[in-house]
Amino acid sequence: MEGLGNEGLGYLGAGIAAGLAVLGAGLGIGNIAGSAAEGTARNPEATADIRTTMIIAAALIEGVALFGEVIAVLLVLK
Amino acid sequence: MEGLGNEGLGYLGAGIAAGLAVLGAGLGIGNIAGSAAEGTARNPEATADIRTTMIIAAALIEGVALFGEVIAVLLVLK
Amino acid sequence: MEGLGNEGLGYLGAGIAAGLAVLGAGLGIGNIAGSAAEGTARNPEATADIRTTMIIAAALIEGVALFGEVIAVLLVLK
Amino acid sequence: MEGLGNEGLGYLGAGIAAGLAVLGAGLGIGNIAGSAAEGTARNPEATADIRTTMIIAAALIEGVALFGEVIAVLLVLK
Amino acid sequence: MEGLGNEGLGYLGAGIAAGLAVLGAGLGIGNIAGSAAEGTARNPEATADIRTTMIIAAALIEGVALFGEVIAVLLVLK
Repeated sequence: MEGLGNEGLGYLGAGIAAGLAVLGAGLGIGNIAGSAAEGTARNPEATADIRTTMIIAAALIEGVALFGEVIAVLLVLK
Repeated sequence: MEGLGNEGLGYLGAGIAAGLAVLGAGLGIGNIAGSAAEGTARNPEATADIRTTMIIAAALIEGVALFGEVIAVLLVLK
Repeated sequence: MEGLGNEGLGYLGAGIAAGLAVLGAGLGIGNIAGSAAEGTARNPEATADIRTTMIIAAALIEGVALFGEVIAVLLVLK
Repeated sequence: MEGLGNEGLGYLGAGIAAGLAVLGAGLGIGNIAGSAAEGTARNPEATADIRTTMIIAAALIEGVALFGEVIAVLLVLK
Repeated sequence: MEGLGNEGLGYLGAGIAAGLAVLGAGLGIGNIAGSAAEGTARNPEATADIRTTMIIAAALIEGVALFGEVIAVLLVLK
């Protein structure tokens, strides 16, 4: 180990990326699903429609979050 | 130990990743389940539907959060 | 002790991880249980359903929070 | 004492961990008990149910918060 | 003492711990007691129940806050 190098900053960036990605995905999916749960309570007959809407949007968030996590893994393994 | 190295920044990154991941998962799942609890109170007959919706979304958040935690472990053990 | 080393940054990371993990778990479980308490007041007959919903979600948060705390312990003992 | 060392960063990490853990536990349990107090006012007959729900969730938060505090103590005494 | 040392960072950590702990306990107990005061106003007959609920939860927050303050004292005296 010969002092601080580029790789170290990459590791720090990986941690920040992984953490913020989960923070964003958690807040986003949490907001969607919270409203979906309330909507289901108010109108149970629309459950299937609400859930499909939720899953489409959550999958979009999940996709970009996993992309961020993969970038974090790339930073770790580089 | 001869001074600050790359590994040290990786440890710091691991802590940031692990902490923010739990923060995101906690806020997200907390929001979902809070709305689910309120929805169950308003319409107990929809409990099963609400709970299924909650678990689907919570599993999505949990998945990306555990991905973030695994990245933190990678940063620790690297 | 001859100056700042990798271990020191690991200790700082451990503190950040442990603190943010408790913050996330506290806010999340607090949100769930606050809504559960209000829901129980509004509809006491749904208490069992509400409490089950609460415990499922709280356990999910607790799991990822303890994962974060274990990462903090790893960073301390490394 | 010859300058900044690993232990110093551990002390800083301990302070951050201890502080954020109390912040998380305070906000979380505060949210639960605030809703419990309002719920008790609205429906005093459900007091026992509300209080049980509150104590279950507060214990979950308390557990992870004390875990975080123990990590802070580890960082201080290391 | 010749320049920046470990003890200095410990003092910084102690300040952060003590401050955030009081912030968390203050916001949390403040939230509880504010809701308790409103609840008592709305339903004075439930005063005893509300007060018991408030004291249980405030004691839980107080416990973890004092733990955090003890860690701050440890950091100062170390």
